[in-house]
Amino acid sequence: MVGRAGRSASNGPASQQDMRRQNLAVVLGAVAAHSPLSRADVAGRVGLTRAAVSSLVDELIGRGAVTEAAATASGRPGRPGRALALSGQGPAGLGLEIGVGHLGACVVDLRGEPRVWRREERANAGRPAGEVLAEVAALAAAAEAEAAALGLRVDGRILAVPGVVPNEPGGLVERAPNLGWRGVRLADHWPDADTVPEPENEANLGALADYWNAGQPAETFVHVSAGTGVGAALVIDGRLFRGARGFAGELGHLPVHPDGPGCACGARGCLEQYAGEAAVLREAGLAQYGPGDAVALLAERALAGHPPTLAALERAGSALGLALTSAVDLIDPDGLVLGGAYADLADWLLPAVRAELAARVTLRPWAPEALRPSALGRRGPLLGAALTTVRRIMADPTLLPAG
Amino acid sequence: MVGRAGRSASNGPASQQDMRRQNLAVVLGAVAAHSPLSRADVAGRVGLTRAAVSSLVDELIGRGAVTEAAATASGRPGRPGRALALSGQGPAGLGLEIGVGHLGACVVDLRGEPRVWRREERANAGRPAGEVLAEVAALAAAAEAEAAALGLRVDGRILAVPGVVPNEPGGLVERAPNLGWRGVRLADHWPDADTVPEPENEANLGALADYWNAGQPAETFVHVSAGTGVGAALVIDGRLFRGARGFAGELGHLPVHPDGPGCACGARGCLEQYAGEAAVLREAGLAQYGPGDAVALLAERALAGHPPTLAALERAGSALGLALTSAVDLIDPDGLVLGGAYADLADWLLPAVRAELAARVTLRPWAPEALRPSALGRRGPLLGAALTTVRRIMADPTLLPAG
Repeated sequence: MVGRAGRSASNGPASQQDMRRQNLAVVLGAVAAHSPLSRADVAGRVGLTRAAVSSLVDELIGRGAVTEAAATASGRPGRPGRALALSGQGPAGLGLEIGVGHLGACVVDLRGEPRVWRREERANAGRPAGEVLAEVAALAAAAEAEAAALGLRVDGRILAVPGVVPNEPGGLVERAPNLGWRGVRLADHWPDADTVPEPENEANLGALADYWNAGQPAETFVHVSAGTGVGAALVIDGRLFRGARGFAGELGHLPVHPDGPGCACGARGCLEQYAGEAAVLREAGLAQYGPGDAVALLAERALAGHPPTLAALERAGSALGLALTSAVDLIDPDGLVLGGAYADLADWLLPAVRAELAARVTLRPWAPEALRPSALGRRGPLLGAALTTVRRIMADPTLLPAG
Repeated sequence: MVGRAGRSASNGPASQQDMRRQNLAVVLGAVAAHSPLSRADVAGRVGLTRAAVSSLVDELIGRGAVTEAAATASGRPGRPGRALALSGQGPAGLGLEIGVGHLGACVVDLRGEPRVWRREERANAGRPAGEVLAEVAALAAAAEAEAAALGLRVDGRILAVPGVVPNEPGGLVERAPNLGWRGVRLADHWPDADTVPEPENEANLGALADYWNAGQPAETFVHVSAGTGVGAALVIDGRLFRGARGFAGELGHLPVHPDGPGCACGARGCLEQYAGEAAVLREAGLAQYGPGDAVALLAERALAGHPPTLAALERAGSALGLALTSAVDLIDPDGLVLGGAYADLADWLLPAVRAELAARVTLRPWAPEALRPSALGRRGPLLGAALTTVRRIMADPTLLPAG
């Protein structure tokens, strides 16, 4: 099982094992980035001897992470090598998702390819956590069975939740207000102790998925997403920043107009009162809209030129621009990404967000194109959950069982 | 010369040298934290063999970082060892500071003790950068000479400036509005190419000094400081976070009341319009106050119960509370520290800051005592500049010349 811990080499004395582990990751990274390539190509790229690389490659093959073809596929001149590539069988990551209106499961292989993808519409708000988790467990088992039939073995399980997951281990969802959860420990409800997933906040996973998916991603960025609430995730130097206790990125309650309307949190003028789903529906005159896809409705009305909807989205965009001004001033990111539902509504939000940023971020260079919608939109969190395990293996291949 | 670069072991393959470097730092850290202790004590603490520790200690002594006494001073039972300790001679860090109204220089030894401390009042705003830097260079040379007489050798030089220092190397101060500097490259003005200091933002250095000075510091915190402007520094997991380009922590231009008074930056309602020195003096009816120590004046009036001063500081505290709400929501720090001039005015600022935080940070645990004034106050940046070199040596003792 590929867990979050992963021994850090930086606090204690370094050992030969640390060196071996790091070099396995370097070789696996070279194969991922440049395959097909031969053992000699790897040695040339990473600056280790051919003998050292061969021993490392043998171990990666033994652990099922790398395959070696009969002959090179590179077509380059010179002595032919045998092409190394990431394995499309064996190691895999399972992602799971609980949304307010759906459940999801996804299995990716070590190449990051989604091989199993399941989604079921379910009204999850207010239901007992145990009931919802039993259904997720059943969905997970079905996805794992489907993956096994494809020759994949799930090495880690991550569950995306619309709530706060504190930093300490133990599989706790501290609070998921839109589900009505408080203090839910996954292991207390999961039917099989061997397959309990690790929970993670959906905005965090959406941000990571966007980062791993983008061709030339910003290394330090703020990923804003909206489901029923408004959240953000901070990626700093390519790593998720969770805050001292796991609460970082609570963008929805930034005070954008300190004397504005009262918020459910007890304060006034929070971003969610302008850019949250309920606030936008209300301003658009669609507050009576029943269960269903509110985002699709807003996009449809905006596309039809419905003035109250356009005004509501502009108001939301301005408020987002104020909150993101604070984020840019504090964090100095390379980029800002609109994810989740905001990605689907980006056409109508972006002009107002950009106008606020242009008017308020004046003391530093700020390029309008540093703000962009995520290409993954609402698929991000589930994909991010599945890819997390793959990324952990890439960083430390010894997490895989030895061959 | 101990520079910022320092080879990172994490991106390429690991080598025996990386291991040696890391283990030297581990041993030096044990000596710093627990001295006096013997070679055997070190081996017991760090989990390396006695033979390995002895070789590492020999190298640290050769590089002048550690001294070994004739007999142990610990008074513990058992076979006596010879006490190891950080050297109070040899390696040292020079800190320099340019303020709007003063210049400063400080030399600390490897134990972090300030051994030389010089401060000269000077009106630096609007003077040519070359003129100011020539005076700093003279002050630096005098401080180094004084240090040499104490048996200290300066291994690194850092200059604290009230301005923006971008991440890229090259010794550039991009903008120091309160000095009137723009695009000043230190090497262009420094008389001796061998002693050009590395510039760093004063708020960043103040934050680090507070972190290194505190007994039980928060590992992730926001350090707010005010000189003529309002700035902040972010320390994340014990390390300064400078942002993607070096602009992180620009707290002074967070929009706290988006429709508020116009700001010199071109936007409206920035924090500096409420909590900056000029705004507080204006609200306190002291706008005509000439050159001199405005902070001391405000403290004196507040202590005397002067109503406009008390109101101005309360207004500043409320605005700071709004900006810090955004910082807490986004970054989820363990702590907030009021540094620089704010530390001297903390008695009158803290109640209003705490009231805003209590009203607005409601969804996560937030303890009022997580906000505290810095014990270093306005001495922080200069001390931080000098200590930076010492901390680099502690992290990589091979930066010191071999014995």
